[in-house]
Amino acid sequence: MLYIIGLGLGDEKDITLRGLEAVQKSQKVFIEAYTSLLSFGISSDGLSTLKEMYNLLQEKLYGKSITVADREMVEEKADDILLEATSSDVAFLVVGDPFGATTHTDLVVRAKKLGVDVKVVHNASVMNAIGVCGLQLYRYGETVSLPFFTDTWRPDSFYEKIQRNRKLGLHTLCLLDIRVKEPSLESLCRGKKQYEPPRFMAVSVAIEQLLEVEQMRGENAYTEDTTCVGFARLGSEDQLVVAGSMKQLLEVDFGPPLHCLVIVGDTHPVEEEMLDFYKLAKKQGQA
Amino acid sequence: MLYIIGLGLGDEKDITLRGLEAVQKSQKVFIEAYTSLLSFGISSDGLSTLKEMYNLLQEKLYGKSITVADREMVEEKADDILLEATSSDVAFLVVGDPFGATTHTDLVVRAKKLGVDVKVVHNASVMNAIGVCGLQLYRYGETVSLPFFTDTWRPDSFYEKIQRNRKLGLHTLCLLDIRVKEPSLESLCRGKKQYEPPRFMAVSVAIEQLLEVEQMRGENAYTEDTTCVGFARLGSEDQLVVAGSMKQLLEVDFGPPLHCLVIVGDTHPVEEEMLDFYKLAKKQGQA
Repeated sequence: MLYIIGLGLGDEKDITLRGLEAVQKSQKVFIEAYTSLLSFGISSDGLSTLKEMYNLLQEKLYGKSITVADREMVEEKADDILLEATSSDVAFLVVGDPFGATTHTDLVVRAKKLGVDVKVVHNASVMNAIGVCGLQLYRYGETVSLPFFTDTWRPDSFYEKIQRNRKLGLHTLCLLDIRVKEPSLESLCRGKKQYEPPRFMAVSVAIEQLLEVEQMRGENAYTEDTTCVGFARLGSEDQLVVAGSMKQLLEVDFGPPLHCLVIVGDTHPVEEEMLDFYKLAKKQGQA
Repeated sequence: MLYIIGLGLGDEKDITLRGLEAVQKSQKVFIEAYTSLLSFGISSDGLSTLKEMYNLLQEKLYGKSITVADREMVEEKADDILLEATSSDVAFLVVGDPFGATTHTDLVVRAKKLGVDVKVVHNASVMNAIGVCGLQLYRYGETVSLPFFTDTWRPDSFYEKIQRNRKLGLHTLCLLDIRVKEPSLESLCRGKKQYEPPRFMAVSVAIEQLLEVEQMRGENAYTEDTTCVGFARLGSEDQLVVAGSMKQLLEVDFGPPLHCLVIVGDTHPVEEEMLDFYKLAKKQGQA
């Protein structure tokens, strides 16, 4: 049996009792580092924090030795993991909900092809936890991803999607780029594996890129006065949620990753009332 | 402090460790029956099953006495609950994630107005758990709700939304109507409180209503050959997920509630591959 277990968004205490039971009865436990690196309050010293997290997971809570399955391992050695699952119970831990990312869908497909039984233990993901800001989840349009712009690569296909959502009065969740374990350009040239330090897009960078594209396109899909909600470390004890115009949010230091951004569409009274609690002027007034 | 704690979708074991800790340190624990009735494997004998669930929650797991806060209580007596939370820790348990429904947003707004601190413990909800069928969550358009048609009330505003999503190649999540603790017509006339038995819309009823509206409108937003995915008891041990055309799914007995339905948009290869595992012909072939 292969258990694919969502860990939720905060820390090791966000696993469900069902998930913990599955970990405890599994002979082998993997944690998907590619995704898990992205959460658990990683700062510039990301790797040591991650290591601390594993120690915590292993020693204090789950009582199991855990193998870190990084991006390469999941993509290249999935069959080894699945082979183990044919004859014993294997737990595969994933930050958030197992089906937030395509990688895990692919793992399930491979498992089913090999005749391995799969059980999924769901948990919170960004896709539903953004509900905390008060904007109703059923009033979101298509989700968009914002990639880091480079000097030569500035894709902007998200623009039409945001434009469409806004015309319909719908909210737009923007998932912000994450670069973990990217081979460095130098290492690609020399043929040995070295990696860039991890990068996480901040709310301010996302807004800068959005405004740059709006200026190029000039179709008024949104402006610097459009209301947005910025999120940092969603679901963690120290999460930060701030609502304001793009211009206002540009000036907010959201702190350590992960960040995400919602572009607000038309709002109903209950949504508006809740959003007010997160608005910048109000927050400053309370401080 | 008011803790609003998501219970997830399956049973009492889907609470997170963080949620359980909050329950354990709370002086008073409420469970929102209006929503919770909707899950936890309710059959025709819904109420006794719910009672069993409470007993289980109270005696075996959470070790606390739990007050059932039904729809009226939440709407009319919220201030009493909140008053308790000003001077002690109060846990308010909700099936799924706390922000799946507007009711809970409203409770948070009231709490904040009274100066009560609120902590939210997230969990899985239908909005992300539908990812299990392999359709990517970021490729869904606006969510729609299908209400039970009556002889005189047949609202069809969902039709345009589905049409729009499908034109864009996006998937549509259809939330199916739930009627719990609805006052009976007779009781409204006589002025004493009596309730209709709970009703939950089945996948087949949803499809019948969808096809009826399509026949009336005739704009080809979808047809009886459109691929859909039907879900029953999502996130539970005995969940059922079946993919097929509307015509095919009409004939499937999905069993006890809750049900929901996804109308499939354009699919990518990985989505298609995963969906294949749930397709009707394949399932029959495997049986």
